[in-house]
Amino acid sequence: MNTYDQIIQLALERGFYFPSSELYADASAGFWEYGPNGVKIKNKFLDLWRRELVRRDNMIEIDGSQIMSKSVFAASGHLSNFTDPVVKCKKCASSFRADKLVQEVANIDVPERMANESVDKLIKEYNISCPLCKGELSNAERFNMMFKVEIGPNHDEAYLRPETCQSIFVDFSRIFKVSRGKLPLGIAQVGKSFRNEISPRQGLLRLREFYQAEIEVFCNPSKLDDLNKFDGIKNTILRFYDDRIIEISVEEALHKQIIPNKLVGYYLALLVEFFERTGIDKKRTRLRKLSDEEKAFYSTVAFDFEVDTSIGWLELVACNYRSDYDLKSHSTISKTNLEVMDDEVKVLPHIFELSLGVDRCIYSIMEHSYFIDRENDDRSVLKLKPYLSPIHAGVLPLLKKPGFKEKSSKLLAQIQKDFDVFYDEAGSIGRRYRRLEEIGTPFAFTIDHQTLEDDTVTVRYRDSMKQERIKIDDANSFLFTNVFTYENK
Amino acid sequence: MNTYDQIIQLALERGFYFPSSELYADASAGFWEYGPNGVKIKNKFLDLWRRELVRRDNMIEIDGSQIMSKSVFAASGHLSNFTDPVVKCKKCASSFRADKLVQEVANIDVPERMANESVDKLIKEYNISCPLCKGELSNAERFNMMFKVEIGPNHDEAYLRPETCQSIFVDFSRIFKVSRGKLPLGIAQVGKSFRNEISPRQGLLRLREFYQAEIEVFCNPSKLDDLNKFDGIKNTILRFYDDRIIEISVEEALHKQIIPNKLVGYYLALLVEFFERTGIDKKRTRLRKLSDEEKAFYSTVAFDFEVDTSIGWLELVACNYRSDYDLKSHSTISKTNLEVMDDEVKVLPHIFELSLGVDRCIYSIMEHSYFIDRENDDRSVLKLKPYLSPIHAGVLPLLKKPGFKEKSSKLLAQIQKDFDVFYDEAGSIGRRYRRLEEIGTPFAFTIDHQTLEDDTVTVRYRDSMKQERIKIDDANSFLFTNVFTYENK
Repeated sequence: MNTYDQIIQLALERGFYFPSSELYADASAGFWEYGPNGVKIKNKFLDLWRRELVRRDNMIEIDGSQIMSKSVFAASGHLSNFTDPVVKCKKCASSFRADKLVQEVANIDVPERMANESVDKLIKEYNISCPLCKGELSNAERFNMMFKVEIGPNHDEAYLRPETCQSIFVDFSRIFKVSRGKLPLGIAQVGKSFRNEISPRQGLLRLREFYQAEIEVFCNPSKLDDLNKFDGIKNTILRFYDDRIIEISVEEALHKQIIPNKLVGYYLALLVEFFERTGIDKKRTRLRKLSDEEKAFYSTVAFDFEVDTSIGWLELVACNYRSDYDLKSHSTISKTNLEVMDDEVKVLPHIFELSLGVDRCIYSIMEHSYFIDRENDDRSVLKLKPYLSPIHAGVLPLLKKPGFKEKSSKLLAQIQKDFDVFYDEAGSIGRRYRRLEEIGTPFAFTIDHQTLEDDTVTVRYRDSMKQERIKIDDANSFLFTNVFTYENK
Repeated sequence: MNTYDQIIQLALERGFYFPSSELYADASAGFWEYGPNGVKIKNKFLDLWRRELVRRDNMIEIDGSQIMSKSVFAASGHLSNFTDPVVKCKKCASSFRADKLVQEVANIDVPERMANESVDKLIKEYNISCPLCKGELSNAERFNMMFKVEIGPNHDEAYLRPETCQSIFVDFSRIFKVSRGKLPLGIAQVGKSFRNEISPRQGLLRLREFYQAEIEVFCNPSKLDDLNKFDGIKNTILRFYDDRIIEISVEEALHKQIIPNKLVGYYLALLVEFFERTGIDKKRTRLRKLSDEEKAFYSTVAFDFEVDTSIGWLELVACNYRSDYDLKSHSTISKTNLEVMDDEVKVLPHIFELSLGVDRCIYSIMEHSYFIDRENDDRSVLKLKPYLSPIHAGVLPLLKKPGFKEKSSKLLAQIQKDFDVFYDEAGSIGRRYRRLEEIGTPFAFTIDHQTLEDDTVTVRYRDSMKQERIKIDDANSFLFTNVFTYENK
């Protein structure tokens, strides 16, 4: 079994994530749920993102509606541009995403956003038929990937947002004013986005409903190199990819024009430093500059932050310099002036964006933390950072006897409001350790005979498997000190 | 201006919440955004809910898809039952929610879920015409309040969930198994739900897209009075309403049969203790037992947790004993046995639910915290609990001079990753204090002349306006101790 399948199995069996509506045959692909362990790692990942990006840079955060009016997507370009080509089998009526079908059957690289005519030509050229029944395929048609909804008894047309950033663009004017903002200003948002994919992939990697954590930095285009805070990160090492990996400081990357300006360099550095704290192996990440063909329609310079996984390189964050594309469109369509004052000059801000796919990050963190300990009974361990672990500590009475239960309850009551704990009295102590390690629990407290005498418990460390004794009274401060340790040592 | 309007004004001007898509004329009513201060209070409220309910009771939490398949809502009853009566004007084609229209025009109480025929009769009886153009109204028709979406190129029918709990019911079987659950087991979820209201009210009180924080307690119906943990809350005072307020301990309420069993009493007590920590005035809350007419179709016993506001009593939490309605329906329609083992006996669990409307809670907390200080220049203060305040502390240099700026930056860098801080150097120090108080900031650090000499700052307390000096080095521990103090003193 490859690592991807092992992670999926762990996810299903230990409640990280699993398919939605799975009781029912009409459940659609591309919808997944976070189970008990998944919710916790996801929420803690977002807390870390807030800590290391939003609060560190004094950004502000909003939380907007997922349903937005039609005009928003007329302005954003999604109504006309956010489409994929689809072909239908004339015999069995099955539908397929045409460019992906060509890519798989002909085994050639097909760029994103290919026009219908080019797809049709390739289908003829490679003589591609229906993969299910070998029937003839129709010509390609455009399929808009937004979900439409109708509002109220008059059926007003609206859409589920395909990216969270549109809320930020539409709200920018009010937010800038009420928060007494100054450029550059980062506005962040975590929330669901929706894309009606023709053929969603398995698991958390290509979903129809998914979490984004987006940051839109509004900036004055004439001041992209006027940034004092650049000095704080200029020595941070970035890994760029272009045929091969180049490890280089932000400052050098600026001199060599790998990055266009200080502002882009600063935020790429913050992003990379954030990921160093997620437990993803830095040596298996890269920043890849996109070619003109690969870039989205609104982007002038774009880097993908990618991570190496068992199923190839995954894009975790799209870093797009969107220029004034968004504010200009919204300004035109809404007939509203969206300029703001920057040092007594009116300016329509440009936008640099860090658009992060949360679900893919969770998958990648799990895969990079997954470890089979060949020296210790092939135990399976998720070596998660303690602050990302679904459960911070196990509470394990050695025996199912009254005294043990009481001490366990005392310890539980003392720590469970502030930490995520799991009480387990079933099975041998060894099996209980294994179950905790498998989901990444960094610490296990065991209540044993000595506990009854002196109110101490053993703490067992997940990675080293070493044990030491601490007082029950010190459990909170032990956890506080050992869980919330963010700096790399 | 009444308090409701004052809160709305504060919300709009200080970035708590505001209408969605407001740049555009086709924005629909019933969609609102959380701004910078709103997101923070909302997220902190949910953290408190997790602390005082989910973790305290060792519940588990999931996070499910918002789009769910049609079968889910066939089983839940929403496809056939989740409707409101709508009438259309034959002249101007405007639509109205018929029962609410009758209620307002005739000024009579109209129960929820009234049948079309009864509504039609009342419209004739009170001679009600179109409130806009006086045109004749059509007969009432049912309007389903779910938003439909179509999935994939074959347009498979699915719906945005009208309540988060359906995810929990559908997932119950897997969750119970993978978490090695035991009855009673609380499963919690925070997320968006969607209701296509015919006439949404203003602000956060009746939204088409809204946040729920739901807890579904799965229990063995033959063991509702077999609950050891009941002893821990038996002396908690509950306030029941039935013509008049009765203040009574949970234990007494059980003896007097105001509550049907220990399980219901235990969770009502947890809920009430949670709300005591939100800053909502307990004397302005009540638990109201619903009559048979008021209850939802799935509920056998129901209490509403209500709060007194300037616009009347608001339902914040619906506490429904749903019996086996949900699991039985899902079991039947999905042809899956959803029974689980409880002490070697197979049982189809019953469900007691605490369904909390997050947005209404945020509004209520703001209103109950809003205070005009008549003794001090009529300053406007949000007396939020420190752990719910959007901003924990202000950082205010007394003067705009180099030394002050450096010390401020040092303090900021030291605290801003762990706490929400706001740096403000604009205007007089008095105005800066006012701006912080108005959004509930409990502490303000001022960098003054003495700071340059001895690295101390003043801390000003929002409520008492008293000041004291602390070392900059102690700011983190000061905030940690003073922000995260949950117990009532």
